[in-house]
Order: sequence, then C-alpha cells, then structure tokens
Amino acid sequence: MFRPRFIHTSRTILNRNLTPLTRVKHPEFKRNPSFAQIENKHLEFFKTVLAPNNILHDTNPDDTSSSLIPYNTDWFNLYRGSSSLCLFPTSTDQVSQILKYCNKNKLAVVAQGGRTGVSGGASPVFDEIIVNTSKMNKVRHFDGVSGVAVVDAGVILESLDQYLEPKGYTVPLDLGAKGSCQIGGNVSTNAGGLRLMKFGNLHGNVLGLEVVLPDGTVLENLSTLRKDNTGYDLKQLFIGAEGTLGLITGISLLTPRRPKAVNVAMVALDSFEAVQDAFVMAKEDLSEILSAFEFWDHDSVGVVKREMMQDTSYPIEGKHAFYALLETQGSRLLENGVAMDGVMAQDAKQINAIWSWREKIPESISKSGTAMTYDVAMEVPLLYKLVEDAKDHFGKKGLLGPGNLYSNLLGFGHVGDGNLHIMANLDGFDHDGQEAMDEFVFDWTMRHNGSITAEHGVGVSKVNYMKRAKSDVQLQLMRTLKNAIDPNGIMNPYKVIPDK
Amino acid sequence: MFRPRFIHTSRTILNRNLTPLTRVKHPEFKRNPSFAQIENKHLEFFKTVLAPNNILHDTNPDDTSSSLIPYNTDWFNLYRGSSSLCLFPTSTDQVSQILKYCNKNKLAVVAQGGRTGVSGGASPVFDEIIVNTSKMNKVRHFDGVSGVAVVDAGVILESLDQYLEPKGYTVPLDLGAKGSCQIGGNVSTNAGGLRLMKFGNLHGNVLGLEVVLPDGTVLENLSTLRKDNTGYDLKQLFIGAEGTLGLITGISLLTPRRPKAVNVAMVALDSFEAVQDAFVMAKEDLSEILSAFEFWDHDSVGVVKREMMQDTSYPIEGKHAFYALLETQGSRLLENGVAMDGVMAQDAKQINAIWSWREKIPESISKSGTAMTYDVAMEVPLLYKLVEDAKDHFGKKGLLGPGNLYSNLLGFGHVGDGNLHIMANLDGFDHDGQEAMDEFVFDWTMRHNGSITAEHGVGVSKVNYMKRAKSDVQLQLMRTLKNAIDPNGIMNPYKVIPDK
Repeated sequence: MFRPRFIHTSRTILNRNLTPLTRVKHPEFKRNPSFAQIENKHLEFFKTVLAPNNILHDTNPDDTSSSLIPYNTDWFNLYRGSSSLCLFPTSTDQVSQILKYCNKNKLAVVAQGGRTGVSGGASPVFDEIIVNTSKMNKVRHFDGVSGVAVVDAGVILESLDQYLEPKGYTVPLDLGAKGSCQIGGNVSTNAGGLRLMKFGNLHGNVLGLEVVLPDGTVLENLSTLRKDNTGYDLKQLFIGAEGTLGLITGISLLTPRRPKAVNVAMVALDSFEAVQDAFVMAKEDLSEILSAFEFWDHDSVGVVKREMMQDTSYPIEGKHAFYALLETQGSRLLENGVAMDGVMAQDAKQINAIWSWREKIPESISKSGTAMTYDVAMEVPLLYKLVEDAKDHFGKKGLLGPGNLYSNLLGFGHVGDGNLHIMANLDGFDHDGQEAMDEFVFDWTMRHNGSITAEHGVGVSKVNYMKRAKSDVQLQLMRTLKNAIDPNGIMNPYKVIPDK
Repeated sequence: MFRPRFIHTSRTILNRNLTPLTRVKHPEFKRNPSFAQIENKHLEFFKTVLAPNNILHDTNPDDTSSSLIPYNTDWFNLYRGSSSLCLFPTSTDQVSQILKYCNKNKLAVVAQGGRTGVSGGASPVFDEIIVNTSKMNKVRHFDGVSGVAVVDAGVILESLDQYLEPKGYTVPLDLGAKGSCQIGGNVSTNAGGLRLMKFGNLHGNVLGLEVVLPDGTVLENLSTLRKDNTGYDLKQLFIGAEGTLGLITGISLLTPRRPKAVNVAMVALDSFEAVQDAFVMAKEDLSEILSAFEFWDHDSVGVVKREMMQDTSYPIEGKHAFYALLETQGSRLLENGVAMDGVMAQDAKQINAIWSWREKIPESISKSGTAMTYDVAMEVPLLYKLVEDAKDHFGKKGLLGPGNLYSNLLGFGHVGDGNLHIMANLDGFDHDGQEAMDEFVFDWTMRHNGSITAEHGVGVSKVNYMKRAKSDVQLQLMRTLKNAIDPNGIMNPYKVIPDK
C-alpha cells in the first residue's frame, strides 16, 4: 500500500572514493583529550560481555579495505571517523554493561542504528566506540485494542509496518529510508517524514522509552499508557537528543489504524499565495483525512523531465508556477475532489505516478551535478520567499543558470509542516560557492525565525551553526542538561551542542 | 457548539467551612527551613516591580476573612496554605524580576493560573509566595494559514476557543473547567481532557514556550514551527512539570480546524469485553473522526437517576451492564451509524441530552454523600477489572451497599485514553475507610502497570505515593533535573517529587 517515496533506500555508499576523514576535512573539531583510547584491556572486557561475532575490531580503521568503513562513514559519505571498534549488543543488559564500563574508563561512545541519518550524527568523529543496535530487533509486545507496540530499538521501521499490516494498524511515521532506518534512530533524531501532518510528531506518538543512561543505569520507562501524569515526562528528554543523553534500547509506540482509502490529486497553481490558499482550503474541506500537502516549483519539473522522466508525460499541461500534491488517508474515499483544477489518481498505479514526480526531484538534481540540499522550516507564508530571495541575490551577481556557478536552484517541500527543501546545483565543485549558499540559506532562515534543520537533526553537520541558531539561554540550558545526565560527556561527543 | 461537560465550572469553594491548613492536616510535610520568610524589605522590592493593585498582601492569611483565602485554597477545598502574598504580574519581564529576586533571597514560589487543578498543585503548602498569571491574558498572535496561536499563559481556554471560532479553528483540548482554567496551567499540568483521543496530548500540540527559569532568566522558545530539530526540545521539560522547573509565561499552540459535523451515539453493551469490541470496531469504522469513546456502568445510571434526572427517561430501555458514548467530529456526518444497538442523537438538543447522562455521574455521586474520586490509567483490557476487584474485595468484607461503609462504588471513564474514573461514596466520613480505598485503588493500579494519575497530576495530593509509583531510577533522574535547573529548590516545593 505504501511505496518508498524518497531515493535513499539502500546502504550503498554513493561515492566510490572514500570521503576524507572528518578530522582532516574539519580541523576545527579537536579530539577531547580527556577521553581514553581503546586498549587491549578494554577489548578483553568487551569480550566478556559480547559473543565474538558481535564485536568488530580493526586496528587500521582508516585503511580503505577496513570492515569498519561502513560503520565509520555517514549516509551521504560526507563524514568519516576512525573508530577501531563497533559493538553489536543483543540485549539491554549488554548495553548497560558496555556504557557502565565506558563511563568508568572515559571511553567515548556513538550510538548507531540503521545509518540512514543525513547529518553525520551516528558516525564517530574521532575514535569513539560505535554501539550499533542492529541486533536488538524484536517486537516485544503488541496490544490490538490500544494499538500500542513495544519494540526493541533496532527494529526496522518497515518491518514493524509489515508486522502491523495484518493487524490493521500502521506506523505513525513514513520515511524514504523506512527499509533501513531503525525505530531507535527515528526516536533519537525525532524523525519527521511524510505523515507528520496527519499523526503529529514522535513527542506525541512515543508513549515510553527504555534508555541506558551514560553510567549504565537502565531507565525503564516503557509505559503503554496514553495518559500518565506521574511526574516529569522523562522520555521526552531523549526524543531528538541524537544519542547525547543516553542510548535508547526500547520504544513503546502508539500506532494508528491502517487507512482504508488513499487518494492522491495533483493541482496547478500560479503563485505561492495560491498554494497557501489551496492548503487552507484543503485543510477546511478535507480536515482530518488530509495526510500530505506537498508542493514544488516549475523549475523542479524541468529538472525531473531533463534527467529522469523524458518519456513520461507530465500530468498537467501548460506552464504553471507551482504544483501541489494532496493525499488523503481515511476511512472514506474522496468523493468530490477539491475545488481546484488538476488531476486525481484513479488507481494505485496513477497514485504512484503522481508521487514519483514529487519523489524524483531530489534524485534528478543529484544527477544534474554536485548538489546541495537544505532542510529548513519556517512559517508557511514565508516558505517560498527564501527561494525567490536566493534567486534574486545570486541572479543579480550573474551566478545563476546554465554555465554559471549555480546551474539550478529550486524549491519543493511539505507545505503541511512548513518544511522547505531548497536545492541547488553547483557547476563543478566550488567550496566558496557552497559556503556562500550555506550562508545565504541559513542566515535567511534564522533571520526569519525559521529552523535550520526541520527534521534531519544537528549531528555534526550543523553543530557549528548552533551558536547562531539558538540563544545563549537555550544553549546554556542544553549544556546544563547534558552535564547533569552525562557529566563525563562520553555520549556522542562533538555533536548537537557547540562548546562555549 | 461545545458545552461544558463537567461540573467544575465556577470558582465557588464547595465547602463553606474552611478546610484545615495543609500543615495541620498533613504534619508529614515539614517547612524547608532554608527558605526565607517574607519581610518588609521584600515587599518594598515587589512594590518597585508591580503596581499596587497587582499585589495582594495580608499578614493574617489564616484568618477566615482574609482576601488571600481563595488563593491559598485548592479547587476541592482539600488543601490550604498560609501565603501572605499573592503577586499578579502583567508581563514576562515582571515575572523575571520576581523570580530573580526570590531565587537570590531564597523565597519559595508557587505558580498559579485559573486554580482549577484538582491535586493541590497550585496552592502553597506553607508560606510560598503565590505568582498568579491571571493578568497576563492576551492572544499575542494567530496565523490563519498554519493555525498556530501564540498566547500569554493567563489566557482562559474557553476565551481562546471563542477567539478561534470565527477563524474556523478550535483548541486541541477540551476540559470541564475550560471557562476558568488558563492555558499556562493546562500546559504546566499536561492537562488531558476529552479531545486527547483525537488530537493527542500537549507534548504534541505545544510548539513552543516562553518560560521564566528559577533564576529569572527568560527562556524564549516560542517557536511556531511544526518541525524543528535544532537540539534538545527544551519545551518538553516544562510540559507537565507542574511549575517546579520554571514559570510558563507564553505558549505557542497548534490549533486544529473546527469540525463541521458532530455526531453522538449511545449504545448498550452487556460486558466489558463487549465495550472493548465496540471500541475496536468504532476505531476501525470511524477511524479519524472518532473523537470520544466514553463508558459507564449500570450503577452509574442508578445514581444519576436517583440524584439528578428522575424526570428524564434514560435513552435506552432495559438493564445492561455497560453503556458507551461515541462522539465523532469531522468534515462529514456519520451516515450509517455504528453496527450496534443504541440511539443516535438527531440534533444538538439530543447531543446534549446524551452527554448529560455521562456528565452527571460525578456530580450525582458527590450529591450522594462523601465522595472519593480516582483518576487512573491502565491498559484498556484491565480498565474495568479494577472496579470488579474492588467490589469483590470490599463486598466480601460486607462493606458495600446501602447502609454500609461504601454505599456506592462505580466506574466510568474514557475508553479511548485508557482512563478510568472509579468513584465511591463513604456513608459518613471515615478516615480509615478512605485510606483503605486509596490503598486498594493505588496499589491495584501500580501492580497492573497503571498510572495513579492519568491527567490530574501529582501536586501535593499524590507526592507521598510517588516512591511506590515510580522506580528509584526515575525519581533520581527527576531529582537530577530539578536540581540542575532549580538548585535552590524555590519553585513549587513539597510537590511532585518526594524527598529521598
């Protein structure tokens, strides 16, 4: 019923050439000298905890043939660490023993799930020990009355969805990476995705967590209750903390009923004001069944046609400034359509066809040359102004268009969530060109009270922007929490919160 | 369109006789001697911050005629403090100045909103300074595209709903106390209410907060974004913290579209298994438009008929073990009803009539004598077993029924949220009888992994049960957070987290 909607579904490293080591590419990161280095005595301890096939060790992790390369390298092949040790615990107790030992011995740790994150948050920066949750992958419990599933952190999102399908339930989040991503990672990064508009975010859908704290203490908080006001809602701390406060080992998740009917329509709109009007109208007409409202600009269609879908006719004729995709999910069919010009899919094949025009945008621009992608959130009325202003800014300098520094510049995204993806092609790799675009996009977003990361997280890729993105008060409170819960700072160092 | 559904809508103190002081009734609470007592120099400072009409001071607060009595006494007239000072700031800056001064001078503080809480959380225990948010009551901003409202903490829930109505939006929570409760208090207590099943809880609907931290620092975090993953989601800490970590002054709230159609049906069911089956069926058939699924037992009907609705015929004939109320809200009318025997309201008058049978239950049992009320959550299949086991336990001892210790014992609640209200009448006030019922209900709930407070919060009334309700690890983490953010412990002391 649900098809993958984005391009990142396999674990292939995109670039055959290994990316430079993060410590080489980003000399601004300095290894924290208070952390110990891995010695034989440490390995001997881990061998008492884990079976031999659950320990991956290589004293030459930087070697191109090292079996640790995939675990040291991030999804986009932009960051690479030098960890010589990757551990695959199979139980919460093993995770507890590992962290207790690491905390005592000041060994830094990075928690890792399905390795589909796109901010470098789950790869080591230096020699942090990787604790990978792949081998903790059981559905512990499911309650068919309440729809609550209790699962191990390493359960793959799509596997859970397949488990739920015959029971009439589905997962409350949908990501392109669903075939690889793990629920523990989804929760740790507060993953958004395509259903957020309908089901809300994980702060609402996660009912409880089991977390191993940095000192090895197990916080058992796997409530299956929708309502529980006994003290602080501790699980919330760990949702979106990107593994800096503890390692999530179990999740209690509220799952919604599987929809009986899915409808998709595509409409043409001549201004971004019209996109917003259509969004308001759709919310009013479709209310609780509106599950997605995506938009893209005309340039996006051009890139997709050129790169990927030359032989497929675009469903709407003529040239329009914008297009929107509306999806409804619910217990009823969409009967009367929406009060706009456009096309409505008549069957599953047409649904897929309409979605693929949306899905092919990032893939097409990647094929068009060196691609830069941004994931920003802001108030809906401002959403496309960023693209317009960027075009104006770089256009006036003569840097836009074929043969120039930025050969393409386009925008698309989730109107329903106020989440814009602005993408650009660099004509050949140009470090200054990338920095200029980064600066423009992030600065513009921050000046307009937006978020420089709507759903991808901070990880290592945006930690250097955090001082500009957040106030001193916010950063100081984050440091206070980090220091209170992880006083030795062993959990996922160098990420999320910048040093003072 | 929405009517108040519970009885607590006015600020009348139920009992004309003042309740004994908390410090007298509960000698187990000891005043923390590290807190300063209010002196003239403190008053002089507050006079430099607030206008004279925003300071209520009385050196004899225990006096029956003191103007501070309503601010010292909780909603149920069960707790009464001895504060001699209630402050009514009109701006966030004033709150900041007050807390900064109190923190420096070790003056304890209790934050107070609409005073509709039912756990004694917003009343002082000893002489804490009351900071009341009633005079901070402006809607700061509303965005008609995104549905995001930014409001002062003191805005009354119903006032916001009235503000939103002509704009086609509504508030995402519905409480009996909506005419008095303030949004800041709702957020501080993570109020649940009748729409939680449809819209989820405040951890999902609150997009941002402005909080004055205990040292007076203003945490400005009023994001209006649905998606923002730049670091820790700090606002989550303060949702449900009952004012122990800071004082919420502003809220950014995601509001849903107002429903176009509301339907209500009442059905008869012969076992709690049948109630559960009906709930599963309703979720499947009605899916996204099912907005409430309430149930009550036959004894509830008996009490309501006897005490309040003698002249009104019950909509369903015959004797059935259980009744359920289904409400749908959505963009369509409920066309075919549900596949069960029962009645469906044909107009707004009948909708109100059906709801009133549900609403009158707590009021009727209150009229039947000394009433005990509990608010517990657990897995839906266990929900009514607590009532059955209590009947069995106390029945075998000959304590149930007219003329006995417990003249009534009944159960009703929100099936959709796994939230049971078990209520009992004590035939005359009997302290041992109350303690025995408390112990049975709380012990049973904890043994079945339930929550001893689903939506009312811990406050002062359940703090002594927290050591049994939560693990040492959970309590210790709560203390760690409290200590990190409020090292002097000035914010709402004696509440929520028990001493070691």
